[in-house]
Amino acid sequence: MEQYSRRQILGLVGGVAAGGAVAGLVMPALAAAPAATQLGERFKQHGGDFSWKPQKLDPVEVAAVAHAGFWHQGYGCAYGVTYSIIGLMGEKYGAPYKDFPFSMMEFGKSGISEWGGTCGALLGAAASLALFFPRKERDALINELFRWYEITAFPMYKPNPGTTKVDGPLPTSVSNSILCHISVSRWCTANKFEARSTERSERCARITADVASKTLEIIQAKMGGTFAPALKQSEVYAGCTEKGCHGENKKDWQHSGLKGRMDCTPCHTGSKAVLDKRKNHP
Amino acid sequence: MEQYSRRQILGLVGGVAAGGAVAGLVMPALAAAPAATQLGERFKQHGGDFSWKPQKLDPVEVAAVAHAGFWHQGYGCAYGVTYSIIGLMGEKYGAPYKDFPFSMMEFGKSGISEWGGTCGALLGAAASLALFFPRKERDALINELFRWYEITAFPMYKPNPGTTKVDGPLPTSVSNSILCHISVSRWCTANKFEARSTERSERCARITADVASKTLEIIQAKMGGTFAPALKQSEVYAGCTEKGCHGENKKDWQHSGLKGRMDCTPCHTGSKAVLDKRKNHP
Repeated sequence: MEQYSRRQILGLVGGVAAGGAVAGLVMPALAAAPAATQLGERFKQHGGDFSWKPQKLDPVEVAAVAHAGFWHQGYGCAYGVTYSIIGLMGEKYGAPYKDFPFSMMEFGKSGISEWGGTCGALLGAAASLALFFPRKERDALINELFRWYEITAFPMYKPNPGTTKVDGPLPTSVSNSILCHISVSRWCTANKFEARSTERSERCARITADVASKTLEIIQAKMGGTFAPALKQSEVYAGCTEKGCHGENKKDWQHSGLKGRMDCTPCHTGSKAVLDKRKNHP
Repeated sequence: MEQYSRRQILGLVGGVAAGGAVAGLVMPALAAAPAATQLGERFKQHGGDFSWKPQKLDPVEVAAVAHAGFWHQGYGCAYGVTYSIIGLMGEKYGAPYKDFPFSMMEFGKSGISEWGGTCGALLGAAASLALFFPRKERDALINELFRWYEITAFPMYKPNPGTTKVDGPLPTSVSNSILCHISVSRWCTANKFEARSTERSERCARITADVASKTLEIIQAKMGGTFAPALKQSEVYAGCTEKGCHGENKKDWQHSGLKGRMDCTPCHTGSKAVLDKRKNHP
């Protein structure tokens, strides 16, 4: 990586702010690429940060659209959740919701391109919440949603027969994890389905509806001033953090607040799943 | 969850399509909330899916803006990466880039509200790539970026002295994981820093610059028709998948393609980290 001068850095990072642009105002786009100062002040955005306002939606409609959004073009869980909330607001209230680049949210499918990281339904929910609420307000909403996801037996949503690829009830499992890989693997192991089966896809389509419903419930409670956190982290997590060595008040590097709020159990409790799979399988 | 009729479902999910709206056209927003058919066709979006075109950017500027974006208002890694690519395109080329709701990307910080899931820098990169490239094109780009993240000793970016909170070189570590919790914990353990230290934050600010640079490199290679995947998954992963029991061609539930492309090693190799931390610590 090349080194460059402080003047160069400041010119790059803060230069536009010195150009006298007014915060929140953005000049119209031009055909050719002009100097940055002609278009916008760095780190300012159209309408202001976190300026979108949530609107009321029908929870039955949100769940059905989330489920259908999962299957639409195969765009998956993050798209389904986001369209069911932001897209429905766009259908009913127009801008700014209708101008959101929804297909971008396909990125979250299968924990991002099959990588199996954070569940895409949760990615879509977290992104949607962040359109409305800055972090100080949002953290408690995310904690509630994510912990609910860890301890809930999914799927719950019941699509009407004839409207989807797999009709009828599906078995459930509790994932104990917000990660796609663990959530999917547990359900498949508990219920003897292949990870690539249509039943597993339908299970994720229904979780898309479940997460969208819960997210809407949280948004509407927040809008009405009635949101109150109902769930706590796991006892194992509490034992490692505020009751143990990794609480926020601990100050040396071995015993300091850890980066994470996921339940510790799936990876740090010596379970069969984390044995050396090349030697002690399963 | 309430049951409802097929007619109701179809009305909710596909009803707008029957209203005669033309694909891609969206009516202007109205002050009051009109019927959905007056505003937009379901699952259609302004300009069309994946319709944004990437533009050329200066890699030195992208890295510096990503690093500064991390620190801007404490918005963090996903915001930094996204602003450095989409925001800079907005500054130079106007719409649609300038109208992106950038503060939404704060959602990715610390793997989403301290949960420690997928690294937020990667969330910002994946979302940015998905503005331009549909999944069929994007998967190979994501695989390259994510595998590079797993095997790279971070941080590499060198901010100019006096421009950031921690000057000078920082020690590095290889995370072997795309997850925030593992990436941060490994660096802290290898180098004896607290997870909540300013040095750790600066480490993540620099990784934000590193991921933005790599993402831009991938975008520009794709634009120029020269992108070619250079990296393979780990040998352990290959041993479990195409050379083992979890390849895509395996068809029973115990031996089928798994959901995930993360390196298996951090969680499934019986390491000290995954022992029962309540009994066999560390």
